[in-house]
Amino acid sequence: MREKIVVSIDAMGGDRGVDAIVGGINRSLHINDKLQFLIHGNKSEIDEKIKRYSKIGPSCSVISCDSVVAMDEKPSTALRSGKKSSMWSSLYSLAKGDANIALSGGNTGALMAMSMMQLRKAPGVNRPAIAILWPSTNHRGFNIVLDAGADVKADSGDLLQYALMGATYAKIGFSIKMPRIGLLNVGTEIHKGRNELYDASLLIKEAEKNTKSFKFLGYVEGGDLPSSKVDVIVTDGFTGNVALKTGEGTASLIKHFLKESLNQSLLSRVGSILSLSSLKKLNQKIDPRNVNGGIFLGLNGIVIKSHGGADEIGVAAAINLAFQLENTGFSQKLTKEFSKK
Amino acid sequence: MREKIVVSIDAMGGDRGVDAIVGGINRSLHINDKLQFLIHGNKSEIDEKIKRYSKIGPSCSVISCDSVVAMDEKPSTALRSGKKSSMWSSLYSLAKGDANIALSGGNTGALMAMSMMQLRKAPGVNRPAIAILWPSTNHRGFNIVLDAGADVKADSGDLLQYALMGATYAKIGFSIKMPRIGLLNVGTEIHKGRNELYDASLLIKEAEKNTKSFKFLGYVEGGDLPSSKVDVIVTDGFTGNVALKTGEGTASLIKHFLKESLNQSLLSRVGSILSLSSLKKLNQKIDPRNVNGGIFLGLNGIVIKSHGGADEIGVAAAINLAFQLENTGFSQKLTKEFSKK
Repeated sequence: MREKIVVSIDAMGGDRGVDAIVGGINRSLHINDKLQFLIHGNKSEIDEKIKRYSKIGPSCSVISCDSVVAMDEKPSTALRSGKKSSMWSSLYSLAKGDANIALSGGNTGALMAMSMMQLRKAPGVNRPAIAILWPSTNHRGFNIVLDAGADVKADSGDLLQYALMGATYAKIGFSIKMPRIGLLNVGTEIHKGRNELYDASLLIKEAEKNTKSFKFLGYVEGGDLPSSKVDVIVTDGFTGNVALKTGEGTASLIKHFLKESLNQSLLSRVGSILSLSSLKKLNQKIDPRNVNGGIFLGLNGIVIKSHGGADEIGVAAAINLAFQLENTGFSQKLTKEFSKK
Repeated sequence: MREKIVVSIDAMGGDRGVDAIVGGINRSLHINDKLQFLIHGNKSEIDEKIKRYSKIGPSCSVISCDSVVAMDEKPSTALRSGKKSSMWSSLYSLAKGDANIALSGGNTGALMAMSMMQLRKAPGVNRPAIAILWPSTNHRGFNIVLDAGADVKADSGDLLQYALMGATYAKIGFSIKMPRIGLLNVGTEIHKGRNELYDASLLIKEAEKNTKSFKFLGYVEGGDLPSSKVDVIVTDGFTGNVALKTGEGTASLIKHFLKESLNQSLLSRVGSILSLSSLKKLNQKIDPRNVNGGIFLGLNGIVIKSHGGADEIGVAAAINLAFQLENTGFSQKLTKEFSKK
């Protein structure tokens, strides 16, 4: 392991551009001096932003890239014509060993396609997945959900692999000794849902018996995503992605209503001022930016997909996740653990 | 139309039993004297609960039923052996014309199967769907989402029908002149998602051109479910059901955190007391019980599926929805409108 942990970061990927990326780097360096950054993108723009902050210059190297992968670009097009992009370049630094981890807020499909091409699938893995952290009442504050959108389809074998990868992520990344795994469905009864879910439940049950390394709870429902009765929730990438955005949308809606309600009368305005610090804490707990950072599981190397709309707080959260994982030697342990199966 | 609106209600269907049903009926009758109820289930138990409330007796007739459809019963089993159940009986009253509308909080799959057998599909409809009301920032306070779980699969033709039924429901049920329809996907770009979604988007676009009775927005994402930019969101029953339960789960999680936060310090406790009435209003807005009531679209007759866990507030909300719809002659208008297509 290097003395410093080097994060290779695509500065052009997010919706908020270089500002959010360099702002996030600045926030991270303020609380963690073990980080070093390779920043890929428009050099003059990035250099200018870096100058705005004192002291972060020595921890940043900028790698100039001519082009950007567009948010609406097809993954196949990005693969063909995106080899000079900041996204490709950020992954290249990881692939050739200059960095410990790569991070991008860009087009998820393109990032996954480029990651698979440059890093290749880890031994024993058929289909990589994106695992995210879902705010929950669990004592650690979140559950792991996968696949959050790497692939819109998953058959029963893929769902089994997600369960195994999720269990390993929970064990190594977050020290959960015996992770509890649930399979997302529209009901908990055995006849509910699509056929591939029933088949997957049999496969996962068998793996539970053989590996004795996790506990399989059977089917769970959408309402269980934030619950403390489960640690890892397995689903296909279409359902996972819709659920993720639905959860975020609901949280935003409630914040909107809360603000509106508390401004309705003088009394409630006074009340809300008195409750301010508590309300701020609430906001931190439900703010999707604070658990930003999907991780691509099943590749030779860790790639973190930051939320496209993430601001500097969100980017800093994703960098923090990257650091935590790499600091435990997660990538090597995951490959080792998984290739045993 | 009858002078009174008669609701045929399955008293044994919900998780909270007869208590919630009769309590909900009592709440409804307190604010609406145009309602009349046919209550199906264990007669002695229902009679006893009715006696608890003053004045509701004359508005209720009890129809004794021997059996109950279990929540985990397979729809096919319920169809074979459930003809003496409270669920079947509540639908039978609607089918033979003794009631205007039927309501049950029981097993959704069984309720849909029995409804299809007794009421039959409306002319021109291939696959019925469950439409629900989703809390939103729209001025009316909700959006319409379908299918919320009638069927775990939907092909492109089914999705087109959901769009047409949803538009009609929005127009007739809620007086939205030109409903804005969105198709739920994992992104708004045209290449995103599964193939059947692309096919469906072409079909809906064509119907928009031909009927000029709604506006098609193309793809929307999970985050748009509570937004004011759309009125009707179309999806398959698996995704819709997961999204619904995810939204409910997120709302519960935030309420849990809010309570926790406001109890943290003396200052915030005082603050929360001052804000109490505002927080109560917030609670009403995000409480899924207040928009309880899925509606089965595409049958000869209106069946409302109340949430299984609904308490008397939830049951009263579902009854209120039933009343509103029947009061506008919705069922006849929907059949007429849809059979034109």
